[in-house]
Amino acid sequence: MKILVINAGSSSLKYQLYDMTDESVLAKGLVERIGMDSSIVTHEPTDGQEVSEVSEILEHTTAIRKVLEMLVHPQHGVIKSTDEIQAVGHRVVHGGESFSKSSVVTPEAKSEIRRLFDLAPLHNPAHMSGIVAVEKNMPNVPQTVVFDTAFHQTMPEKAYLYAIPRVLYKKHKVRRYGFHGTSHNYVSAKAAEYLNRDIKDMKIITCHIGNGGSVTAILNGESVDTSMGMTPLEGLMMGTRSGDLDPAIVPFVMNKEDLTVNEVNSMLNKHSGLQAISGVSSDMREIIDGMLAGEPNSTLAFDMYEYRIRKYIGAYAAAMNGVDTLIFTAGVGENAVVLRERVLEQLTFLGIELDKEANKVRSKQPRLISTPNSKVQVLVVPTNEELIIARDTYRLVTEAAK
Amino acid sequence: MKILVINAGSSSLKYQLYDMTDESVLAKGLVERIGMDSSIVTHEPTDGQEVSEVSEILEHTTAIRKVLEMLVHPQHGVIKSTDEIQAVGHRVVHGGESFSKSSVVTPEAKSEIRRLFDLAPLHNPAHMSGIVAVEKNMPNVPQTVVFDTAFHQTMPEKAYLYAIPRVLYKKHKVRRYGFHGTSHNYVSAKAAEYLNRDIKDMKIITCHIGNGGSVTAILNGESVDTSMGMTPLEGLMMGTRSGDLDPAIVPFVMNKEDLTVNEVNSMLNKHSGLQAISGVSSDMREIIDGMLAGEPNSTLAFDMYEYRIRKYIGAYAAAMNGVDTLIFTAGVGENAVVLRERVLEQLTFLGIELDKEANKVRSKQPRLISTPNSKVQVLVVPTNEELIIARDTYRLVTEAAK
Repeated sequence: MKILVINAGSSSLKYQLYDMTDESVLAKGLVERIGMDSSIVTHEPTDGQEVSEVSEILEHTTAIRKVLEMLVHPQHGVIKSTDEIQAVGHRVVHGGESFSKSSVVTPEAKSEIRRLFDLAPLHNPAHMSGIVAVEKNMPNVPQTVVFDTAFHQTMPEKAYLYAIPRVLYKKHKVRRYGFHGTSHNYVSAKAAEYLNRDIKDMKIITCHIGNGGSVTAILNGESVDTSMGMTPLEGLMMGTRSGDLDPAIVPFVMNKEDLTVNEVNSMLNKHSGLQAISGVSSDMREIIDGMLAGEPNSTLAFDMYEYRIRKYIGAYAAAMNGVDTLIFTAGVGENAVVLRERVLEQLTFLGIELDKEANKVRSKQPRLISTPNSKVQVLVVPTNEELIIARDTYRLVTEAAK
Repeated sequence: MKILVINAGSSSLKYQLYDMTDESVLAKGLVERIGMDSSIVTHEPTDGQEVSEVSEILEHTTAIRKVLEMLVHPQHGVIKSTDEIQAVGHRVVHGGESFSKSSVVTPEAKSEIRRLFDLAPLHNPAHMSGIVAVEKNMPNVPQTVVFDTAFHQTMPEKAYLYAIPRVLYKKHKVRRYGFHGTSHNYVSAKAAEYLNRDIKDMKIITCHIGNGGSVTAILNGESVDTSMGMTPLEGLMMGTRSGDLDPAIVPFVMNKEDLTVNEVNSMLNKHSGLQAISGVSSDMREIIDGMLAGEPNSTLAFDMYEYRIRKYIGAYAAAMNGVDTLIFTAGVGENAVVLRERVLEQLTFLGIELDKEANKVRSKQPRLISTPNSKVQVLVVPTNEELIIARDTYRLVTEAAK
């Protein structure tokens, strides 16, 4: 079965075409600048050359049509006909409390995702445009939705409620949802498999550290707490996001600088984090280069970033009364050797013993970076959110056909 | 030497008169409803009956005059003449970055405290009224100021900076200050003394849990991190304060409920915390009663409160790469046996072993509540902020006289 995985943003659309017989990627690509001047389609067949094309793409329906054209193109296409695509899986950021797992797209599911626009005003409407665009282009192909929030729906009330008037939860569903759930779920399962252990008997902390980042406490296979909150702003320091903050700073700054609600949101989400502290970059690779060159602002940005990851690991060890497995994943988590080293060398009180050489190895496979004596097994597990979406889609569509 | 300790609020003024020869309290009291109808003065001589008087007190100068009248009153007074009061020590909430220790009141100190009104708009102006009122009533008596923030001025940059545009720090001094410093300092020193250990070689976590609450990491005698932030709103769940929150919730709620900056501040500081979750009370004693009676909202409020204290302990153990001493203090910390038990029984991964019987003992003295085998020594240390103010005042005035 061939499955198309879509991640639709407001002005972009990423795709990957999977062949589920061996879970191989046949092609992947990206449509950028949808609705703007000179949209760009970049298409990369796994066994061929990347091609790029400037085009006029005013909305998502045209974007999907363009993707399908690329996939069946005589030169750089990878399938003969779009009929070969038997299902489409969408990444959806916010599933609210309605979705605790992936779902087939039905009229009910669509209206539920629409009801959640309020909680993810930047993401969910874009995902819905993607779903509708696929419907228009391929009316008979089943679609599924895979949510960033779903894995965290097992959190207990004490972890997901904020200590604010309860009417805000009842009326506006203000609570912790958490994100990156697909990734936290995947890497924790992968680690259990790699260690040949039963996840139902493990205390795992997963650090998904990419441009955004979150830490999750996974007790006996279930998410029990996570650092992102109602929105992806809470928690760790990120590329351009502030993470945790005295909430009183928000009204204070609005007042002092005469900012609107939108302006303060923009400041905290787009102009904070590594970018604000380093003054150089939101990219951890550049921050590490700066730090290694002795640049003080990059060093400070790195130290703040590392320190907050470390504190969350400590907090979640306390949440579960211990930790036996610690996992790093995503862009920064998989590649920033020095970041892992700094975090881990200051967690020896947990019985962690880092294998410094193993920590330097790069691989696409899960690997252990702690010594055999370490009380906590520390792993790097490459994440693959698209593959999980493809797998969930395959499972749901196969089940539905039974 | 007799020292008067003053804690001036906007409409109230607390006082204690110390005899420093034996650090005994001669009398204490409270003026309430300053500037409102029927102000009340309650005065309690240590060796006599409490008296209460309704009076007209329009501002702080009259309040101080009333206090002095009480102290020399023929029936319930404790000194013959106000000349016996050789110094006055004031509690001041916010010392910003200017004060890293207690200070004698000078014209410079006063203008510095005034410059900090912005950071503590509810507290510092009231403290200043207290200082000016004492000046007017006792122009020749030296005064001192003891700051809630001072002890935390040793925090490193990575702990006190927020990951937001740096101009906000430069222009408006937006950073973590921390509060309850006088208490965290006192109980940590007291614990080191009790354990006969050198504080310069200890990793201490202090939990000051009262109506407000904060947790502090104290490494080698210095505060290196603390849960309250720029304001006392951040960190733990408190009686009526929310503590930590996804910062994006603030603009979200302002928008949805059409709240102003002042209204959202009021909601988060006065109508959140235990009060909001339990719907019953902001007082931990009532919450515990409710929980023990099986009332679900009180149980949830208790669980959230406990859980957050525990997570901060874990986070600060990670901040210092370990903890050897854990201290509970203040109203709730000293008295809520079941809260300490619940926190500690879920921290066995740190090597903590609770002595359940010792935990039940009530005493005005510091006491150990962990077993001899416990890897972390856990203590209850009664705090006494007024005594520390009196001691600092005594020291400063004696030094100045040399």
